[in-house]
Amino acid sequence: MKIIVDAMGGDHAPQAPVAAAVKAVSEMGVQIILVGKRDVLENELKKNNYSGQDITIEDADDVVSNHEEPVKAVRTKKNASVVVAANMLKDGKGDAMLSMGNTGALLAAGLLIVGRIKGILRPALAALLPSAKGPKMLIDAGANTNCKAENLVQFGIMGSIYMKNVLEIENPTVGLMSNGEEEGKGDELTKETFPLLKNAPVNFIGNIEGRDVMEGTADVITCDGFVGNVILKTVEGMGHVVSQKIKGIFLKNIFSKIGALFVMSGINEFKQTMDYREYGGAPLLGTKKPVIKGHGSSDAKAVFSAIYQAKKFVETNVIEEIVKNVNGMEGKIND
Amino acid sequence: MKIIVDAMGGDHAPQAPVAAAVKAVSEMGVQIILVGKRDVLENELKKNNYSGQDITIEDADDVVSNHEEPVKAVRTKKNASVVVAANMLKDGKGDAMLSMGNTGALLAAGLLIVGRIKGILRPALAALLPSAKGPKMLIDAGANTNCKAENLVQFGIMGSIYMKNVLEIENPTVGLMSNGEEEGKGDELTKETFPLLKNAPVNFIGNIEGRDVMEGTADVITCDGFVGNVILKTVEGMGHVVSQKIKGIFLKNIFSKIGALFVMSGINEFKQTMDYREYGGAPLLGTKKPVIKGHGSSDAKAVFSAIYQAKKFVETNVIEEIVKNVNGMEGKIND
Repeated sequence: MKIIVDAMGGDHAPQAPVAAAVKAVSEMGVQIILVGKRDVLENELKKNNYSGQDITIEDADDVVSNHEEPVKAVRTKKNASVVVAANMLKDGKGDAMLSMGNTGALLAAGLLIVGRIKGILRPALAALLPSAKGPKMLIDAGANTNCKAENLVQFGIMGSIYMKNVLEIENPTVGLMSNGEEEGKGDELTKETFPLLKNAPVNFIGNIEGRDVMEGTADVITCDGFVGNVILKTVEGMGHVVSQKIKGIFLKNIFSKIGALFVMSGINEFKQTMDYREYGGAPLLGTKKPVIKGHGSSDAKAVFSAIYQAKKFVETNVIEEIVKNVNGMEGKIND
Repeated sequence: MKIIVDAMGGDHAPQAPVAAAVKAVSEMGVQIILVGKRDVLENELKKNNYSGQDITIEDADDVVSNHEEPVKAVRTKKNASVVVAANMLKDGKGDAMLSMGNTGALLAAGLLIVGRIKGILRPALAALLPSAKGPKMLIDAGANTNCKAENLVQFGIMGSIYMKNVLEIENPTVGLMSNGEEEGKGDELTKETFPLLKNAPVNFIGNIEGRDVMEGTADVITCDGFVGNVILKTVEGMGHVVSQKIKGIFLKNIFSKIGALFVMSGINEFKQTMDYREYGGAPLLGTKKPVIKGHGSSDAKAVFSAIYQAKKFVETNVIEEIVKNVNGMEGKIND
């Protein structure tokens, strides 16, 4: 299996992607194509003492920065690493692609270059969030605004398949994010979506609320991408503030530092369950081939998790199953 | 000043409202009208050794439970405590009202009985959230779904006035909740709202994102009530999960319990800044008279804070200023 990695995107590129690639080829038995500036990447591989055959480099001398308008950048920068990577995926030169760079650019490359599965109205970004009951999926986490009911139903179906295959959750539950649990609650969109999800091929548990995100009430949370993006960033922001505050408490004085020693293992365990780096990246679901967005601040460990996730995404035939479920027996990936 | 308190609503009614009322009349110099079952409330006042003249009881032998359909309940249960309280407020028998009961019922009573300020299209629930920079306002936190741009602008204006007058924040900043900071980001609603807020009489700082909620980037966060409700409950749910986890870490074994002793003061201080009970209740902004929703789980301390807030809401002429700002010089409270 060949995984294409945009080695120029993200806060810790190219160090993190290259280090993760070196570890992945040795531990996962995959091949990696690093996309980016050849001399930079060769130099980085040398630093990692890598001289094997399982990592190859595809030259791409441009990048899309975080401040560029994504669609325009993807359309005009033919030599940007994310564009080159997406074209390779489309052309069958790899089995999945991963980028830690500009989210919008990856979404645009996925949509415009890799392409939608026939019958999928809008691909969605599916973020894995920590919860009291393990990782849960938030879909759409920000690829689409102004969604229709049919979009939210497809998000639920695609999310269920991913959670079943990749996270090995049997019969994953799907909750519809709303402003109240009762069936009658919601805005126009969720009220229209509710009966459709009831009849969809998913384990629908009804409306859920914001407090269910961290409680882990549903394995898959389906919502409009505007709402999902707000949830994702609210959780990230709160995690950041809380961990800063706790750090401050322990570093306050000599007594608190002594206290910290007694609870360090528990705190570290807690931090680990809340650590996005354990969960890999956010798959883009609904494209013809596996595309994964790694967090912009991914270190080598996080990129490694995301590569592992990409491998499992391919191995467990998520896309084939989406095609079958969305289009019935006639479903097929359109060319 | 007379504050009308629905003494039958909330998880800790009537104990918490009655205890808070007894403390409030002695410390704040206000008068309180407790609305609810007379014998129950008289008994509760006795338990608190209260025999003064500043607390009176208004008999209401019915309640709206949390599971009832709010609008229907308010229309049919003429003797429900929240309905009696709202009618007293409307009739000038008190200066403000407070309820810890069914949120929907309070909103319905505010809208249908107390009434909208002329020119305010939709009153909004304004929740005060803890942040790294002190309490910030989220408006609308759940009174309205499917808002229009004009609604969000009015929420921003009303929220600014409240934060300036009641929380004494000079020139409060207003942020528009969106899925990206740039002006072009957002869904149809926020894109339409952005230019209107630019021209509104508020200190508009542009789009903000979910992570800004806890960072405290804006003093007032304006958004549709569906989105606001999801944010509010996500933050509440995360706070609950995190504090449970931290408690678990400290109670794990004898060593962690010793460790806890060393950092207890810091943890308590942190808990206090994150404690909704410090911030009082959520004002309903846009009604002709001050209506405040206390948290359903309010203890006596939280009800006391909410009474204090109601007092300040009245004293600082928030409603008069909303009327002026919304309707220009001709603005007046319609009868």
